[in-house]
Amino acid sequence: MASDYLYQQLESWLLKGIEEQRWLMGDRLPSIRELCKQHGLSKATVQHALQRLEAQGLLEARPKAGYFVALHAKTVKEPISRSRIEAPRPVTVSDLLLDIMRRSAAFDLLPDLHAGELPSGIVTLNRSVARALRRQKGDDYQYYDTPAGDAGLREQLSLHLLRRGWQVDIDELCITSGCQHALFLALMATCEKGDVVAVESPGFYGVLQLLEQLGLQVVEVPTSISTGMDIEALEEVLKRWKVKACIVSPAFSTPGGALMPKDPRERLLSLAEQHDLAIIEDDIYADTALGVVPDPLKALDQYNRVILCSSFSKSLSRDLRLGWISGARWHERIIKLKLVTQLSSSRYLQQGVAEFIADGSFAAHLRRQRHELRERRDRLIAHLRAWPGDLRISLPQGGLAVWVELPDGVDTLEAYPEALDRGVVITPGPLFSVSGQFRNCMRLSFSHPWDKRRVEALNILSAVLVPHG
Amino acid sequence: MASDYLYQQLESWLLKGIEEQRWLMGDRLPSIRELCKQHGLSKATVQHALQRLEAQGLLEARPKAGYFVALHAKTVKEPISRSRIEAPRPVTVSDLLLDIMRRSAAFDLLPDLHAGELPSGIVTLNRSVARALRRQKGDDYQYYDTPAGDAGLREQLSLHLLRRGWQVDIDELCITSGCQHALFLALMATCEKGDVVAVESPGFYGVLQLLEQLGLQVVEVPTSISTGMDIEALEEVLKRWKVKACIVSPAFSTPGGALMPKDPRERLLSLAEQHDLAIIEDDIYADTALGVVPDPLKALDQYNRVILCSSFSKSLSRDLRLGWISGARWHERIIKLKLVTQLSSSRYLQQGVAEFIADGSFAAHLRRQRHELRERRDRLIAHLRAWPGDLRISLPQGGLAVWVELPDGVDTLEAYPEALDRGVVITPGPLFSVSGQFRNCMRLSFSHPWDKRRVEALNILSAVLVPHG
Repeated sequence: MASDYLYQQLESWLLKGIEEQRWLMGDRLPSIRELCKQHGLSKATVQHALQRLEAQGLLEARPKAGYFVALHAKTVKEPISRSRIEAPRPVTVSDLLLDIMRRSAAFDLLPDLHAGELPSGIVTLNRSVARALRRQKGDDYQYYDTPAGDAGLREQLSLHLLRRGWQVDIDELCITSGCQHALFLALMATCEKGDVVAVESPGFYGVLQLLEQLGLQVVEVPTSISTGMDIEALEEVLKRWKVKACIVSPAFSTPGGALMPKDPRERLLSLAEQHDLAIIEDDIYADTALGVVPDPLKALDQYNRVILCSSFSKSLSRDLRLGWISGARWHERIIKLKLVTQLSSSRYLQQGVAEFIADGSFAAHLRRQRHELRERRDRLIAHLRAWPGDLRISLPQGGLAVWVELPDGVDTLEAYPEALDRGVVITPGPLFSVSGQFRNCMRLSFSHPWDKRRVEALNILSAVLVPHG
Repeated sequence: MASDYLYQQLESWLLKGIEEQRWLMGDRLPSIRELCKQHGLSKATVQHALQRLEAQGLLEARPKAGYFVALHAKTVKEPISRSRIEAPRPVTVSDLLLDIMRRSAAFDLLPDLHAGELPSGIVTLNRSVARALRRQKGDDYQYYDTPAGDAGLREQLSLHLLRRGWQVDIDELCITSGCQHALFLALMATCEKGDVVAVESPGFYGVLQLLEQLGLQVVEVPTSISTGMDIEALEEVLKRWKVKACIVSPAFSTPGGALMPKDPRERLLSLAEQHDLAIIEDDIYADTALGVVPDPLKALDQYNRVILCSSFSKSLSRDLRLGWISGARWHERIIKLKLVTQLSSSRYLQQGVAEFIADGSFAAHLRRQRHELRERRDRLIAHLRAWPGDLRISLPQGGLAVWVELPDGVDTLEAYPEALDRGVVITPGPLFSVSGQFRNCMRLSFSHPWDKRRVEALNILSAVLVPHG
């Protein structure tokens, strides 16, 4: 209306643009300078309009980046598919699934793209590792590192973890060849063949493969895509069957990036004590937090029952093959298992990474990466929102992927070969369970640079999965 | 006698010097030029004397290095202690032994010495790895390597192994985190908890630890310090008990460096076929050969039953943590186990090592190392020959250690803490068996540079173990 204040006119114009999808969720609005020029308004008026929309939760201000169309839980429909509780069973991963898992480990729609620039953090890291190599002297190369790993790296990790509310002594840490290796050591130390392990469902397929190879049985616990494992369901499971260990990922579990609130964390620990359970905490995604990095479950571990497993693969580089484990009451056994199954880790590499953390380069890398991941997540969700059909999408505050629930009848496993024929790799929902559930779901990653070829791949996917009527 | 020819006078003088231990076994004689000057003789006369002593097997000519007092099997008394055959049993490694094993992995009397110069081969290797790091680009760092490992490195390994009479396709090779990791994968792929595994006795303690942690039973097969596992004894074992796998090290097995001749190799393979056995070949010492590198047992494997395990730890660097496995009929299962237990190996590292092999640097490094190892072996044996008491010493043609049999009554396990108090680490005989045998034996390494502090450590050892009367 003509009688409106100028700021109200701008507000209406912006709202209409969002409704008409001129800007999608996660898109950046024109800058304040541009809006001033375009509408002949003062900077104060434009700022006033933007701040009002921000107060309504429709826009989001990001320092030095501008205003973005906000992503709200209420504007994204959350996935609702839930697992059923079923009796424990041995795991059998089919060769087809194994093949898909191998491709999906790259978290990429186009695994051969290798696009973008090597981030400056990785360049710095590589220099630091090369420096450690140059520092080798005498017959250093003739010695194996101690089984627990380089004390300098453990010291840096301990400082890094302290910022997340967990005070850990370096003797409680052991360096591994990545998080998968840590999970393997944790299962070897706590379970025997035939034992039952409780897992998140949907949850990480690498765990299912591990259970299969170790001859362990699985019981799947229904897991919310936003708040993680359903502890009431776990309690039900523990009443009915003898469970040896429970693998959870309280910070941004794959596939949907769920974050477990404090209450269920505490209940989980009580249950562990009550039922003599080992809790294996997969903490690998914590440092991908888009906001505050959540405390590890381990920080609350008064019963000495939480084995924390993590690595640098998601926060830094998948090619380092460097992780860590803190084994609670099983720690000595875990170090022994590491020793007999592979002796030690490379000392030069650990020293290079320790230096990279010590000089602040890791923290700087994480800050830059957080910014990039947030933008990539928002772009991906904005793209998905424009797909035809009734999609439900998780809204993770960390992790590297969203969980997408497609309309009933869509079968992502069936669509897999067709997408692959067109050069696109998807991660079908059934990978994240042993029960064949989640056929209309998939995991989509925002780990890689937003590239026009990846946008094209998303368009192909959209056409393959939800063709227009 | 005055009537002797001049060359005969020199010959007698040299012989007397050897008898009087002016030069010990393995020592270099004065150069031809020096002998000429010293004795006022012509070069031809000196050469004639030396060649005659060489023909008698008392001296050894080494190109560009001179003449050395020869090491003959007949002048070194071979160790004769033998294992008994006992029923299979579970393995229990005591904490004390575990502690000693950790220290002994460094193969060093003085583990904190880190003396000498970094060999030029290692400097070149480190540069090659640093170059591979610098070549990373795009989002390479976001990808895991394929489970079997970098194809370029497998190609180079395949060429390297071809020189030893074994034609292997790169699809038959899988990269691991060292030889211990390869042995672990081989046992996981072939055995289940409680199964019986035959091992060399004396043999590698790392294998005993592995069997313990995997809940496997061990049966020890008497093993000669010069020709390896006694295949007749193995046959006896196989008749009496069901054995699932047999771990052998045909090329320079630890502790004594035995080399298995061709005949027993062929009988071993027949027995494997007859008794449905997996043969796990620990090939880690092959490239330390002082002379010709022996063919792997795997090259004769017509039944597809030999799993070859090896790494760069003894031939190049223990800090690389890079090995390989060729899994015969179990290869697919082994790759799957590697995938689920640690996903992959670092690609940059594999590429760096592949380049190091491809440009000939590895071969050059092995040539230099061979020369050094030979000299270190000879010096060590010469030192031991001067100890009081009746010592028996193995005379390895490869590997990094000799096996020493001390007089009856000497107890190396008891002497361990006393030696440790004086700063010297020994590797007592009982480590190489589960039966408590070999108490008067020990392994001594010639892996590290011959240094006056190591000589001093040997003198301390001599005083602790075989005190003068």
